[in-house]
Amino acid sequence: MKRRDFIKTGAAATAAAGATITAAPAIAQSKTELTVVSTWPRDFPGLGVSAQRLVERIAELSEGSIVTKYFAAGERVGAFDSFDEVASGNAQAYIAADYYWKGKHPAWAYFTAVPMGLTTTEWTAWINFMDGQELWDEVADGFGLKCLPCGSTGCQMGGWFNKEIETADDLKGLKMRIPGLGGDVMAKLGASPISVPGGQIYENLVSGAIDATEWVGPYNDYFMKFYEAAKYYYYPGMHEAGSSLSFGMNKEFWTGLSKHQQEIIRTACQEEHSHQYHETVANNGLYLNKMVNENGVELREFSEEIYDSFGEAAAEVFEETRDHSALAAKVHDSFDAARSELGGWMKLAAISYSVQRNRILDI
Amino acid sequence: MKRRDFIKTGAAATAAAGATITAAPAIAQSKTELTVVSTWPRDFPGLGVSAQRLVERIAELSEGSIVTKYFAAGERVGAFDSFDEVASGNAQAYIAADYYWKGKHPAWAYFTAVPMGLTTTEWTAWINFMDGQELWDEVADGFGLKCLPCGSTGCQMGGWFNKEIETADDLKGLKMRIPGLGGDVMAKLGASPISVPGGQIYENLVSGAIDATEWVGPYNDYFMKFYEAAKYYYYPGMHEAGSSLSFGMNKEFWTGLSKHQQEIIRTACQEEHSHQYHETVANNGLYLNKMVNENGVELREFSEEIYDSFGEAAAEVFEETRDHSALAAKVHDSFDAARSELGGWMKLAAISYSVQRNRILDI
Repeated sequence: MKRRDFIKTGAAATAAAGATITAAPAIAQSKTELTVVSTWPRDFPGLGVSAQRLVERIAELSEGSIVTKYFAAGERVGAFDSFDEVASGNAQAYIAADYYWKGKHPAWAYFTAVPMGLTTTEWTAWINFMDGQELWDEVADGFGLKCLPCGSTGCQMGGWFNKEIETADDLKGLKMRIPGLGGDVMAKLGASPISVPGGQIYENLVSGAIDATEWVGPYNDYFMKFYEAAKYYYYPGMHEAGSSLSFGMNKEFWTGLSKHQQEIIRTACQEEHSHQYHETVANNGLYLNKMVNENGVELREFSEEIYDSFGEAAAEVFEETRDHSALAAKVHDSFDAARSELGGWMKLAAISYSVQRNRILDI
Repeated sequence: MKRRDFIKTGAAATAAAGATITAAPAIAQSKTELTVVSTWPRDFPGLGVSAQRLVERIAELSEGSIVTKYFAAGERVGAFDSFDEVASGNAQAYIAADYYWKGKHPAWAYFTAVPMGLTTTEWTAWINFMDGQELWDEVADGFGLKCLPCGSTGCQMGGWFNKEIETADDLKGLKMRIPGLGGDVMAKLGASPISVPGGQIYENLVSGAIDATEWVGPYNDYFMKFYEAAKYYYYPGMHEAGSSLSFGMNKEFWTGLSKHQQEIIRTACQEEHSHQYHETVANNGLYLNKMVNENGVELREFSEEIYDSFGEAAAEVFEETRDHSALAAKVHDSFDAARSELGGWMKLAAISYSVQRNRILDI
């Protein structure tokens, strides 16, 4: 007999025997409602499916102690209104990329991805085992929120362009969908960055309202059909080397949970963080080949010279970000130190190993 | 009131009211005993602490439905006897590196790490989102086991040597502690590989019974004090680019669990897989600097020429492994295809990005 069957049986037996009913209200009290609003359309391949899976998993692992409701973008509020919906307490949690909120505070960007930033492995180490989570808590606390990592897309592609980008000059005047501080880097180089939700990018690209867009990588981008409107697909993306997603909860909701409910949410978010990342990695090669072979996509690598320009622009953007406030500077400096230390280790380990292995095996 | 408090209260109320006692035995039945034997000494930094944390986490997340007992290496059986202890049903699970069992079947090696193999990211993608887990199940099923990933050390260092290794010839005649197929590669190059449990390596190195050893990486190795006996510390390790650990359960135990108990174990193992990996990544740079600056450790990189020798020897070892059986060949071929596909994607993405970023930032 499963525990939840016993709970029902036990309660029924208790009531039948005419015992005091102190136990019965406890069942109702122990159920916690968790309404989640997300920034992805319903059943959106990759990101949307991941968000839906996470919400179901929390309910499953809690054995019904947490009762979840999920609203995709537009079903309850628009994608970019999910922050206010949760900060106000109308809903209990959002699933989003926290760099969407950089207009509220630029430090939010560091908790998704920043240009010339951390890979997924480095970011997760910074958040969970250096001072990343503590700083995220500090930023979120200012808005009445508590955030946990709940997904990662890995290192993204540089984006879709309707012309070749041979020098940084070719970026000038381009209208490009690219959010976060990566967009600010593009602006430094003369492009016009625009932030629109995922569900509206395709129509903008087809209509010519934008000339270029980044989204995620081959697996996620395939379903967006960007290849119908822009055939040059650039790598590697400088703007999101390890974009992570946020399960952003209303802080009062979070602190009102039992310890066990908090741990269920923590473990489910961590599981989904890993699930989404590795699922994306597993599918990217496959979908990249598919688009190149079946859809006429042309793969291009950003040159060293263009990367140098990205690096210079990113340094300027970071200076401005630090100037915003003491908190922004504190978050940036922690990130910067982690980048050197974690980057140094990874260079010695997985990076130098992969370079040797790939050379020998012609990968 | 927490659910577990309610269960006690509910049961007590039922009994007091003299109702039928069908509910009471259900409490006892719903508790499952899980005895875990591990291959690490008690409180062993890194690996041992990780194993203990996982076992506690399963108990915590199950809210007492799974009652756990943990035995470190030697507390119930010796490290290398944990396999038989679980396969026989004397204990319910082991925590180990499955390549310890390559003498029982060489395919076990692929579920920890093989030479010139997968990084942690690639391995996890292969196991969870390609056919890795299915093949692991097939190998484990032959021994009455069911295994899940429960930790990863990331890309390991090449090892500790008491002399410089300038060409592959310098490996000839070396007695080196190196398990798995990596040991077979060393044998092809004229070294004598030896497999001893972690708790016994230091004494062997100090006494001169072995000339060299690999273990994990700076964070784990620091506590082993190998720097007292061998000062040359080589990177990157060809033998374990993403060594993963196994929560190996008795298959009958696993199939007898409720769906909810299985999911609690799955999510706890996945969480620990991520926890151990990122904790190790976060600490390796710090401990590497410590050993270089405080303990006189000299860092050396394996040359391209030595890597070429590793590559040739690994190809021979793989041929022999494939020849063992149809199952070994099937596992190898799946690994080999995953290595090309995942390696190709990572080369385009995180690897090429990291190389550009590190160049610009002088990391």
